[in-house]
Amino acid sequence: MSENRTELAEYGEFQLIQHLTKNVANLQPSTHVGVGDDAAVLDMGAGHFSLVSTDMLVEGVHFDLSYAPLEHLGYKAVISNVSDICAMNGVCEHITVSIAVSNRFSVQALEALYRGIKHACDRYRVDLVGGDTTSSSSGLVISVTAHGRVLKENLSLRSGAKEKDILVVTGNLGAAYMGLQILEREKSVFTDAPQVQPDLSGHDYILERQLKPEARVDIVHQLLEKGVVPSSMIDISDGLASEIFHLGSQSKLGCHLYEEKIPIDPKTYETARSFEMDPTLCALSGGEDYEILFTVTPEQYEEIMDLPDIVAIGYMADAGSGFNMETKDGHVVPIKAQGWDHMIKED
Amino acid sequence: MSENRTELAEYGEFQLIQHLTKNVANLQPSTHVGVGDDAAVLDMGAGHFSLVSTDMLVEGVHFDLSYAPLEHLGYKAVISNVSDICAMNGVCEHITVSIAVSNRFSVQALEALYRGIKHACDRYRVDLVGGDTTSSSSGLVISVTAHGRVLKENLSLRSGAKEKDILVVTGNLGAAYMGLQILEREKSVFTDAPQVQPDLSGHDYILERQLKPEARVDIVHQLLEKGVVPSSMIDISDGLASEIFHLGSQSKLGCHLYEEKIPIDPKTYETARSFEMDPTLCALSGGEDYEILFTVTPEQYEEIMDLPDIVAIGYMADAGSGFNMETKDGHVVPIKAQGWDHMIKED
Repeated sequence: MSENRTELAEYGEFQLIQHLTKNVANLQPSTHVGVGDDAAVLDMGAGHFSLVSTDMLVEGVHFDLSYAPLEHLGYKAVISNVSDICAMNGVCEHITVSIAVSNRFSVQALEALYRGIKHACDRYRVDLVGGDTTSSSSGLVISVTAHGRVLKENLSLRSGAKEKDILVVTGNLGAAYMGLQILEREKSVFTDAPQVQPDLSGHDYILERQLKPEARVDIVHQLLEKGVVPSSMIDISDGLASEIFHLGSQSKLGCHLYEEKIPIDPKTYETARSFEMDPTLCALSGGEDYEILFTVTPEQYEEIMDLPDIVAIGYMADAGSGFNMETKDGHVVPIKAQGWDHMIKED
Repeated sequence: MSENRTELAEYGEFQLIQHLTKNVANLQPSTHVGVGDDAAVLDMGAGHFSLVSTDMLVEGVHFDLSYAPLEHLGYKAVISNVSDICAMNGVCEHITVSIAVSNRFSVQALEALYRGIKHACDRYRVDLVGGDTTSSSSGLVISVTAHGRVLKENLSLRSGAKEKDILVVTGNLGAAYMGLQILEREKSVFTDAPQVQPDLSGHDYILERQLKPEARVDIVHQLLEKGVVPSSMIDISDGLASEIFHLGSQSKLGCHLYEEKIPIDPKTYETARSFEMDPTLCALSGGEDYEILFTVTPEQYEEIMDLPDIVAIGYMADAGSGFNMETKDGHVVPIKAQGWDHMIKED
């Protein structure tokens, strides 16, 4: 298109959006936080902040309809946005859903997609308040925008962590990624020998984590009940390592992580081993768990340590010491910036 | 996918979204108006309503990059959403922009797109507060969500028109459609004979209406100054006829339209004639003008009739009398439901 052509592949997703929005100036007094956190934070003159987050899901990039049923896909599209609002310590109330579809899809297929969307909306008490439906020349694209709110004093940004804060994670990690590995394996078996039925038995838990994940609104409510506002928060959609980097760099800190503390479900561990993969690496780099990573002071941690399904995995350190992990055998190694960047596709 | 396969082509865009969202129940007390107007209306506990609108633009469906420069496309993507907020009698303050792109696009191409987005944001004092950037296996998809506000007493829905209200339109109609015809013609000339330079001379006005339209925030401000709140409002993105049907059916009314009152710019008229098209039909069915259609009482109309750039084109009638147009030669004919539905594309 011009003499100076820079390929998109030279930028990762985060670098690209940072680059494209670097000249953005906020003119509206109501813009409290713009681009750069899990959600935008708007001050609309009430006692709370309004939160806005948006995600786009593209067939062949974020999902493969040969193993992701449309109903689950609709569910997951809502969840990933509800999770972004959770990651601001807020509650999601409204979503809009826009879709572009080609004639490969029937009305029944879209009905299945919307059943999943509705199921998630019912479960999380989120209202579907708008959207757009249009045609596409190839495949399915889903864009969801979520709207929520948080009391002003309860807002948790990525940038608020302090040195010596405890790094806490909910649930367990790597399960969605191992679910994906099972699905990919069975798809390739099926492609090679279509008469063979897929063998998904015994993998219910990790398959559900991949196909029908949940958002941790329970944690947001529990923290509220305990009166604990995390100093920083982010949801784990791209892998623990990537999220720790976001949180640390935006808070201008490093961190010290303990490998043995990273919560990994036995099913995830077992499946990783059967694929000859390192379970810790799956937890660090596998995406789509939709758990929450947050930081609290040691005093706050004492308040919440009896909550189910949370675990301290390390602490925030000064920026100079970098991002490190103490391995099970006692070595301290730098954490690698291995995210879940979706590759740039050929047209 | 199943025995009962209904093709998407059997539904228009509006029927499809109505069908897919027909079971949507609003659970949140903050949802004042959900699916079905130009924007959702949320009551977030302040003196105003929050407005949310979203649009998805797909390459090859909504735009053709062989004649729509990316910078203009970015501008137009913002404008069409600002216009939706105007059509609630509100003011847009924030947008999020998500894009899916293939490797056919360079970083410079996306920079041009974002220059256009930023230009529109600056001009309309809208803050870009978030978004998502991902890859696509074919072409460019842009999803914009706009957020605005309106004082509660100033909200204008599609459903509020009353019998005998005056039907008013801003600016002039059909220009963007005729601009598109010029661009399509020059593209096909170029395809047939690439050595021939496109002849766009003399068509600046209608080309600008197509490539770089504006949103009628001026009208919203002028109505506010006059203290006039329209009983109903909609923006003209799909053609006058289609918008009259939306407004009338949601208000449970018909209308009586005067052909000779429909505002058509001389350039539009002349170009339509040169294409042997009926200028009135272009105004009724051509989309993307982003003008505003609204209704006011006869008393209110007297208050605003001296405003520049607005014209009364008819009045609302009871539902039984249907949607009719009195032609220039005095005949009364039913208005045809010829919208601007984008065709369902083959995958």
